Amino acid sequence: MKKFNIGIAGLGTVGRGVYEILQKQKDLLTLRTNCDFEVVAVASRSRKDFVAPSIRFYDNVLHLAQDAKIDIIVEVMGGYDLAKDLIHSALKNNKKVVTANKALLAEHGKEIQDWVDKYQGVIGYEASVAGANPIIKAFREGFVANEITEIFGILNGTCNFILTKMKNEKQDYKIALKEAQDLGFAEADPSFDVEGNDTAHKIVLLSSLACSSLPNYKQTYLEGINKISIDDINLADELGYKIKLLGVFKKIGDQIQQSVYPALIKNSEKIAQVDGSYNAILSKGNNFEYNLMIGRGAGGNPTGSAVVADIVDVACQTKHNFLFNAESVNLQLANIINISQRFGQYFIIFTFDKNNLSKASVIEQIFTNRINPAQCIFKENNSLNSDDTKFLITGAILTENHFEHEIVEAISLIDKSLVSNIKFIRVEQTNF
Amino acid sequence: MKKFNIGIAGLGTVGRGVYEILQKQKDLLTLRTNCDFEVVAVASRSRKDFVAPSIRFYDNVLHLAQDAKIDIIVEVMGGYDLAKDLIHSALKNNKKVVTANKALLAEHGKEIQDWVDKYQGVIGYEASVAGANPIIKAFREGFVANEITEIFGILNGTCNFILTKMKNEKQDYKIALKEAQDLGFAEADPSFDVEGNDTAHKIVLLSSLACSSLPNYKQTYLEGINKISIDDINLADELGYKIKLLGVFKKIGDQIQQSVYPALIKNSEKIAQVDGSYNAILSKGNNFEYNLMIGRGAGGNPTGSAVVADIVDVACQTKHNFLFNAESVNLQLANIINISQRFGQYFIIFTFDKNNLSKASVIEQIFTNRINPAQCIFKENNSLNSDDTKFLITGAILTENHFEHEIVEAISLIDKSLVSNIKFIRVEQTNF
Repeated sequence: MKKFNIGIAGLGTVGRGVYEILQKQKDLLTLRTNCDFEVVAVASRSRKDFVAPSIRFYDNVLHLAQDAKIDIIVEVMGGYDLAKDLIHSALKNNKKVVTANKALLAEHGKEIQDWVDKYQGVIGYEASVAGANPIIKAFREGFVANEITEIFGILNGTCNFILTKMKNEKQDYKIALKEAQDLGFAEADPSFDVEGNDTAHKIVLLSSLACSSLPNYKQTYLEGINKISIDDINLADELGYKIKLLGVFKKIGDQIQQSVYPALIKNSEKIAQVDGSYNAILSKGNNFEYNLMIGRGAGGNPTGSAVVADIVDVACQTKHNFLFNAESVNLQLANIINISQRFGQYFIIFTFDKNNLSKASVIEQIFTNRINPAQCIFKENNSLNSDDTKFLITGAILTENHFEHEIVEAISLIDKSLVSNIKFIRVEQTNF
Repeated sequence: MKKFNIGIAGLGTVGRGVYEILQKQKDLLTLRTNCDFEVVAVASRSRKDFVAPSIRFYDNVLHLAQDAKIDIIVEVMGGYDLAKDLIHSALKNNKKVVTANKALLAEHGKEIQDWVDKYQGVIGYEASVAGANPIIKAFREGFVANEITEIFGILNGTCNFILTKMKNEKQDYKIALKEAQDLGFAEADPSFDVEGNDTAHKIVLLSSLACSSLPNYKQTYLEGINKISIDDINLADELGYKIKLLGVFKKIGDQIQQSVYPALIKNSEKIAQVDGSYNAILSKGNNFEYNLMIGRGAGGNPTGSAVVADIVDVACQTKHNFLFNAESVNLQLANIINISQRFGQYFIIFTFDKNNLSKASVIEQIFTNRINPAQCIFKENNSLNSDDTKFLITGAILTENHFEHEIVEAISLIDKSLVSNIKFIRVEQTNF
């Protein structure tokens, strides 16, 4: 029986999950793989984190990479510089690497791929996107014979939890966020999740695999859920839509759209029904047509399960691998459209004082700006109506398909002394 | 660049799909794998099936296995004896094998695994279950660190298409079947699909992977959709349930339930919402928790896409593989419970003449037989009411959880002169 010694860098939720799964599923893993996987060393900032007399402990994670007894290094500490140094050093020392570090791969993918080439290394990163959903494996292996044409991903459980709370319990954003924090679904500083960065890292990786291109994080259009109000959710609901934070990838000729934003999705579409902290990825390929995966996107066990699957995978891999579905020499940055070139429906939300303007005039205002409304909705007595001397009405128009720059231009032409607080939310149709 | 020569046995929908995908995605496959995959030979019953001057044609499929130029044999002809001989001969001649033959693997899995061991061979069979859904890969690799505790699969697109038609268009079974045949979703002889055998082959394979055990087709309890009437569907609908043909796997202590039957599922459960010819697999694992995959289960391109993914997979695989998640020496038949030991809810359907019996008395009849009803429903003027001299009422009782033998016994005790046409449909709760 082949034995593989493992070193774990980082003992947070995921690191502990990996350690525990390797212990409790030891027999199962041996039965299924005929290999023995053993954690021989761990590294963490604080020695308090871990005590197991038989396992070596390093305060300095880089020492893991120099431990001659280690075959596979599991990087689950996150962050950039130190993680990068660890992976570099691990590959250099002929160790295989498993990482859950989406941020590092999405922002420094080229360097990592160059090292993989240089040292003929192997890296697994299943746990970096959508936790327990084997989506990286699907994109690298299962769908290898497909041109991926569209991806819609609910890729951040925190945001999905907050939006679900807001919708189901009519809670305002801040209250839902507080509850997510109390339950451990959101960090004390939630900005990375709620501003969309985390989703962006994940859609960038999926997009790279889809296009066999280098991750292009910098040009990814990014908008979080922190400006979504309970009024927006209620207005969308009245027309039969939910609001979800989506990572969106679309092939548009030789270019791609690669972006993150909250979007309206019809209640009847399957991805709209994925609530709570679940993740989901709807992909379209030219041969497999549609595929939807739904599962846990975070947590020690689900993410740990994906890391351990990678450990098994890389253990027996002999060939160095193409991180992004092509050899380095063929990897280029994908050509990303500017968000202003997005073509689709929009949900334009605004307020006006009915003393000054009739509903018909508001619609006319938008109409004259060459935007075609599909549906309109108006709400009096809304939560914005705090000033007793005014009769504020919140209105929303669901448009037909337009280029985003047409919408932006139309909004710029609206008389702001009559119609105020104008914003828009994009609308996506997945047809699934 | 490594080159792999492929021989395809069988040129039906899937065989042609594989051939076409290998042609049209040649550049993409080369980009992603740095390998060249070329079809050099095909075998089929009729030479008419295929004409491409550069490709060798064999009337006798077994000659494929003797073609020294072939590296990978794709068996997509189906059937038992000849397919088995081909796979045996291919492995013996050191060729790798990709098959979509669920029937062969589910019924003769042990022999195939023995040959894989003997010749240190490699077999891929992703396309055998749920077409384009990478579920075999998930069970062998993605979920390797999990004890799988439950599987609910909609694994036959034909049956799902028919049940969806019946439900949405209030069609009777025979009319929906005819339409499925006209549209090419059902065979001229549909018995293999509608009687549940095809679903059984697939759940048997998933169950083997879940338990690291030998496929046990013979002991699989099997019931198709051919006895489901539009009345059953309407009655279920009134209580908020759909009827779906499910492959069911449940771990029950050291035993398992492994069966196929039409079942009621609440409309609100995600798997109930998978309609038309789509397939879906909901799995539960002790670490990943829940995973649901939805996608095409059949068709030349979706299934071809899965076969080509396997071709890429086996091409670079050097180690012989464990077909059923364990080495042969550790493979045993799983211990399957008798269906009478199933514990769950039941939907009991019956008719009675209201001249003879009141609704209350019917419920009492069931009650006295120690069955606890959760909900009852009665329908007059139903389609069974063809005899003008009688006032037939169709009734249905949704029970609480019971062992199936309790239900069978209770039904046996009902006075058949008063209550007739008694049958039951199982009810499943996936909690997802």
